Amino acid sequence: MPTEGVHIVPVRGLGEIEPGTDLAGAIGAALDRQGTPLRDGDILVVTQKVVSKAEGCLVRLADVEPSPLAAEWAALWNKDARLVELVLRQSRRIVRMERGVIICETRHGLVCANAGVDQSNVGDESVTLLPEDPDASAERLRAALSQASGARIGIVISDTFGRAWREGQVNVAIGVAGVEALRHFEGQLDPTGYELRVTMLATADELASAAELVMGKVDGVPVALVRGLGRALGAGAATELVRPAATDMFR
Amino acid sequence: MPTEGVHIVPVRGLGEIEPGTDLAGAIGAALDRQGTPLRDGDILVVTQKVVSKAEGCLVRLADVEPSPLAAEWAALWNKDARLVELVLRQSRRIVRMERGVIICETRHGLVCANAGVDQSNVGDESVTLLPEDPDASAERLRAALSQASGARIGIVISDTFGRAWREGQVNVAIGVAGVEALRHFEGQLDPTGYELRVTMLATADELASAAELVMGKVDGVPVALVRGLGRALGAGAATELVRPAATDMFR
Repeated sequence: MPTEGVHIVPVRGLGEIEPGTDLAGAIGAALDRQGTPLRDGDILVVTQKVVSKAEGCLVRLADVEPSPLAAEWAALWNKDARLVELVLRQSRRIVRMERGVIICETRHGLVCANAGVDQSNVGDESVTLLPEDPDASAERLRAALSQASGARIGIVISDTFGRAWREGQVNVAIGVAGVEALRHFEGQLDPTGYELRVTMLATADELASAAELVMGKVDGVPVALVRGLGRALGAGAATELVRPAATDMFR
Repeated sequence: MPTEGVHIVPVRGLGEIEPGTDLAGAIGAALDRQGTPLRDGDILVVTQKVVSKAEGCLVRLADVEPSPLAAEWAALWNKDARLVELVLRQSRRIVRMERGVIICETRHGLVCANAGVDQSNVGDESVTLLPEDPDASAERLRAALSQASGARIGIVISDTFGRAWREGQVNVAIGVAGVEALRHFEGQLDPTGYELRVTMLATADELASAAELVMGKVDGVPVALVRGLGRALGAGAATELVRPAATDMFR
């Protein structure tokens, strides 16, 4: 293979992540063990699940008291009323609530099913919530791993979202640090002299999707290393990826 | 680097693609020249632009007579009325038409801005339309490149779409052959015994997004080689990625 191009490597063997686990330390140790210590230009894509667990963004369902709305919706669609209650609490706006599906806008501005409340890969009758401030979580990981390795790196925190109009879910970026969220092309010309139709590419979302290809959902690969895309390093935040209400035609 | 993982390599030097160009031949020759001949399990992501050009899906703007609707909209928003006319002709449904933006559903069921009509990277006062049947285009490329190389490969034809709620565009799959479009997880359990929240991942869309990372918009890299994801080979079609009207909450 030529050395050119981008290499995406699964990072395995993080061990069990629990509230208080030093996630950056666990990732660094796993990278060392598999012979891929961080280098300048590397980007790590880390799934939301392990970030939420390490930060203690967990709720025991037994501690949740459903509201009448949650109880009624849950009964109608055969859902767990405590889960529905958490979804409503995690939302600042309900985008759609029909056919048993709740599409929410979270306080971060993310539009997704169930406001990111997720029971899978947790066990113990608990669920994870999204990190309080995923860009800050990404920045803490970046700073810690950068300091430990001495390498200039970027971090993307990913979650798995559905899309309007298209079947299947994809990984997107909900937290970003040290890497561009958007790549701007405004005013640039193509080789034939025309202004480019594409004005912004969502680099961080494409990184999240690319990383998912080596993650799988059952294999327990919560981190991927993206090597060869140092040009994408820079200042970025996942908040840039949230479309403002004023230009959102699908509220 | 470990041999595990996925490698994404830009494919350069295809030469000028014109109506009637043997696109499979041009891709195969470029792969050989850069020392990456096809192997079993390889997936090629090919941008819609070169497929449309090779298939002659081009229209000279001088040949387009705008309708009154197109002329009025174009005058209102300072657009080229001939372009607007083509967009309307390429649509089977207008999803949104406001603030100078036309979000269309194409006859393929794809929801995107301007129905895929694109002036960039064409020149000569012409525009490209989407291929008539992108899955069939992908299958022709797969068959020709597979026969020439003897390798079992997959093809994704990509285009760059905006999304609801999120800023920036990403590459998605509009044509698929020899590779899964969706990866199904229905009924599978996570390591803690819970049913997975994610039921379908849009593998082909994630492949398209991953490939974009090595393509750029100005650099003229219309093809990317994805190596190391042979497990994704199989039967798939981009039509699987189109959400049926009955389950689409954002029509």
